[in-house]
Amino acid sequence: MRFGIFGSAQARRGVPDVDSGAGFKDFVEYNVQAEALGYQSSFVVEHHFTGFGQISATLNLLTWVGARTSTLRLGTAVMVLPWHNPVLLAEQVATMDLLSNGRVDLGIGPGYRHNEFAGFCVPMEEAEERFDESVQLLIRAWTSDVPWSHRGKYWQFENVVVEPPTAQKPHPPLWMGAGRPESIKKVAARGYNLLLDQFAPFDQTIDRFKLFRSEVQALGRRFDPSRVAVARSVNVVMTAAEREKAIEARLAARRRTERLAQRPDGQNKASIMSYASTLEAAEAGTLYGSPDEIAAKLQTLRAAGVEYVLLNSVGGLETLRRFAREVLPAFAGASVTA
Amino acid sequence: MRFGIFGSAQARRGVPDVDSGAGFKDFVEYNVQAEALGYQSSFVVEHHFTGFGQISATLNLLTWVGARTSTLRLGTAVMVLPWHNPVLLAEQVATMDLLSNGRVDLGIGPGYRHNEFAGFCVPMEEAEERFDESVQLLIRAWTSDVPWSHRGKYWQFENVVVEPPTAQKPHPPLWMGAGRPESIKKVAARGYNLLLDQFAPFDQTIDRFKLFRSEVQALGRRFDPSRVAVARSVNVVMTAAEREKAIEARLAARRRTERLAQRPDGQNKASIMSYASTLEAAEAGTLYGSPDEIAAKLQTLRAAGVEYVLLNSVGGLETLRRFAREVLPAFAGASVTA
Repeated sequence: MRFGIFGSAQARRGVPDVDSGAGFKDFVEYNVQAEALGYQSSFVVEHHFTGFGQISATLNLLTWVGARTSTLRLGTAVMVLPWHNPVLLAEQVATMDLLSNGRVDLGIGPGYRHNEFAGFCVPMEEAEERFDESVQLLIRAWTSDVPWSHRGKYWQFENVVVEPPTAQKPHPPLWMGAGRPESIKKVAARGYNLLLDQFAPFDQTIDRFKLFRSEVQALGRRFDPSRVAVARSVNVVMTAAEREKAIEARLAARRRTERLAQRPDGQNKASIMSYASTLEAAEAGTLYGSPDEIAAKLQTLRAAGVEYVLLNSVGGLETLRRFAREVLPAFAGASVTA
Repeated sequence: MRFGIFGSAQARRGVPDVDSGAGFKDFVEYNVQAEALGYQSSFVVEHHFTGFGQISATLNLLTWVGARTSTLRLGTAVMVLPWHNPVLLAEQVATMDLLSNGRVDLGIGPGYRHNEFAGFCVPMEEAEERFDESVQLLIRAWTSDVPWSHRGKYWQFENVVVEPPTAQKPHPPLWMGAGRPESIKKVAARGYNLLLDQFAPFDQTIDRFKLFRSEVQALGRRFDPSRVAVARSVNVVMTAAEREKAIEARLAARRRTERLAQRPDGQNKASIMSYASTLEAAEAGTLYGSPDEIAAKLQTLRAAGVEYVLLNSVGGLETLRRFAREVLPAFAGASVTA
């Protein structure tokens, strides 16, 4: 199995006497250390207007991480295409891909948080249509050596060749998050890689993984398990009290996200919004426990064929270190596919 | 006097068997070396659709440079505001400012190249209006700790607080290029710093410098010469043949830019388009010659009160080294203001 990291950093504003940059700088060091510990990738969120300083300029933070690392894959989970001019985004991704010698893994999505659509004054109903137009433009920008024009619903470009080129050809791998069966099928049909969220319980995650695998195979393609990344929250907790506290903190974070993401009518249909806000649900998909308990949970993923896990380490670097030392070695080999 | 560097890099596309990233990676090393040689800043262009791979994702390239340096100021010359969502741009700048411990110098402009307005399908006539709306939004995004909304002609935002904050307060210094008297007066009135272009002959550059100084003073403010940066192309050339070749290359580059920038009706009124396309004009504003000749030219700037020069080094790192060794020491002290 291979392991990467997944997460965010915080740089709050309006807090006196605090170095607002400390959270970002710590996150950079965290990534540098993760590479040294054997983690292969870092997937970073993009969020806006959260009020608690989540990463907004994802590619800029990742670019800094790229300059401080040499093998770590630089992933986004995910860039929300409706906020971005697709030509500028193509240029930014290509620049990072060139400078990093082809280490970009571009996770993309249509967005799901109400507060972001409201803030950018983009109707949430346009999300999918904007996403589709932007993906088409990104790929055209990366792959066309001859001038092209586009008169779309949301974007217009005239007689352009977009520079620089990417290092990876034809372009960096595209990743999409999906949860519902029809969404998973769409990711397979598009030929993208799949990100599975950190919230779903293990059995549901495995069902999604298997559906994607069978869809890819039904399309006549060889299934490559390195193209599905399963996100999991990890926390090495040894006592019942530690575990209880960790789960409570997780639920509080989850509720904070839901408040930002939920629509005023309560009708946010994103699969990531479909989990119950209970302590039980908050614990269901996690790798919380002793190293042995974590290994047992990981084994269920491995037995199903999962070979790539992204760790959202609540305990920060210390948890990453313990995981690397006490859990990872037993999973370093190839999976035994079920 | 203080010295910085000014320029671009190239990453061409569609050229087989070429490492397209080499130009960008060389440019990063060039910046790292410049810092070690005593240069204090690097100002980088933003251009799109040039066909010869100029830097398009300026902040991303500069972010990489920032991670590889520790004192070098990270400048743009200039970010063209009409291409950018001002909230995303504010986030990108703030992220770079935090990570670099406040090293951002943000040059901004309304744009002047026809081929870019055409490519982005933005009418050139809207440039100033778009610029003004965007500047106002950038500053609001950086400085407001409470939610704000904006219903403008080009941009709408609703109830947002933009994160992260900048390291520099209230925000990174803003720089603007200007050449015409009315534009120079506007930069002074706005309280921004001034970038003077590399093409104007020395006497014209000095006139512009003096106009800005007197405008600032007339507004009742103390004039700080570190807030005017004069760009100059530098090339240590020893023989007449070397000089001739250098001037011819400069004229060719200038014509290439003019072809991209000129409007079909020939009515591009940007001051940077006002210089003649002749060998004489191409040489007029340069620091080309032996170290002694370069020093004599610099002395005319220093005598007028100029204290900050940005070098566009045609000869690359070798010229920067020679300049640092043979010219810079005599100018390292404070200027004798005329």
